[in-house]
Amino acid sequence: MALSPEVRSNERDRIAQMVLDLVKERGAEIPYQLAITESGLSRARFDQLFDDYDDMFDAIAQLWLKPHMVAMEEALAADLPPQRKMYEFFRRRFVISRDRFREDPEYFTILCEMGAANFERVRSYVDLADHYQCEVIVQAQAEGYLAGLEIDEALSLINQMVSNYTLPDSLIYLGDKLTEQKLARIIDTIFIGLSGESGNDAAGLNSLRIAT
Amino acid sequence: MALSPEVRSNERDRIAQMVLDLVKERGAEIPYQLAITESGLSRARFDQLFDDYDDMFDAIAQLWLKPHMVAMEEALAADLPPQRKMYEFFRRRFVISRDRFREDPEYFTILCEMGAANFERVRSYVDLADHYQCEVIVQAQAEGYLAGLEIDEALSLINQMVSNYTLPDSLIYLGDKLTEQKLARIIDTIFIGLSGESGNDAAGLNSLRIAT
Repeated sequence: MALSPEVRSNERDRIAQMVLDLVKERGAEIPYQLAITESGLSRARFDQLFDDYDDMFDAIAQLWLKPHMVAMEEALAADLPPQRKMYEFFRRRFVISRDRFREDPEYFTILCEMGAANFERVRSYVDLADHYQCEVIVQAQAEGYLAGLEIDEALSLINQMVSNYTLPDSLIYLGDKLTEQKLARIIDTIFIGLSGESGNDAAGLNSLRIAT
Repeated sequence: MALSPEVRSNERDRIAQMVLDLVKERGAEIPYQLAITESGLSRARFDQLFDDYDDMFDAIAQLWLKPHMVAMEEALAADLPPQRKMYEFFRRRFVISRDRFREDPEYFTILCEMGAANFERVRSYVDLADHYQCEVIVQAQAEGYLAGLEIDEALSLINQMVSNYTLPDSLIYLGDKLTEQKLARIIDTIFIGLSGESGNDAAGLNSLRIAT
């Protein structure tokens, strides 16, 4: 029986949620064969839903990262001053991850490991987050912030300075050292201090004397 | 035969270097028993040098991280303006790690894994780096930078913003995205933008309306 796109999509979500529940329950990544067995579906039906493990992983990533996607889209659409918008853009995702981490650190850690092991499958989400962030940067530049920087340059620098609040693994290592207050200070520091003119004082003109 | 402290210290260094060479050669962490065998020393003599694997790991970490220690001490002692000093404090260590990574990424990655697996043994180096960084912060504050922040607060915020340049693992993930130019911009951004007053614009007063 051919599946309608809607039924197929719902079934993919249902199986993805089932696999997530199994990961939580067993404390381990779920192999493809086990997912098929546990689904209660015939192999033929399962094959109509997923091409292979990678495809199933895509459905899991989509489900797991959906709240992050919604958070970014909401922050981008919000009518806020650039600083507040950038902050919300990062804060909302951070809070989602932090709450998940606090609720079940072990489950969270396994999902981080799964994400790392299947990084090529989550790369599109990283790219999309970068794309949205560029829009936030453009809006900030339109109001005079982050002056004199190429968008890609600003993107890379901000990503590097805020990475502890976007990489889920950081929660495992830093835990309560990551706070919304510190994130706010970092965002303000970026808005006050980051421009095409900075990088001169620190690097200095006397670098030959210093660089040993 | 009792070993003089000097002979013992030199022998510890020699064995630590031998283990590092073996790690590089074999592409794997070297178990304690193998280190004993490869050392060519009697078990009794080896036991005079090291209490156990952890103790041997200490000697390895000391050797591997010595250039970083020297770099920090030199930066701290240098007569430089605060921005340049903070930059050199991070830049020199970053360059040491980057050059090592470029020379042999595989060897570098194994040593990162060894460091992570034996994190309690390298914690004292992290603590010492924090201690030195506090001195750099105090010197900067004496000249009016990083105003209105507790030292621990400044330390934590700067550590978070610069972490990609101190955590060796970042080189594995980010590679050429990490540059001295970007580090200089980040340090200048910190000196221009980070103070006890920041964190207000980003967090805003309308957080109740926003925090959904």
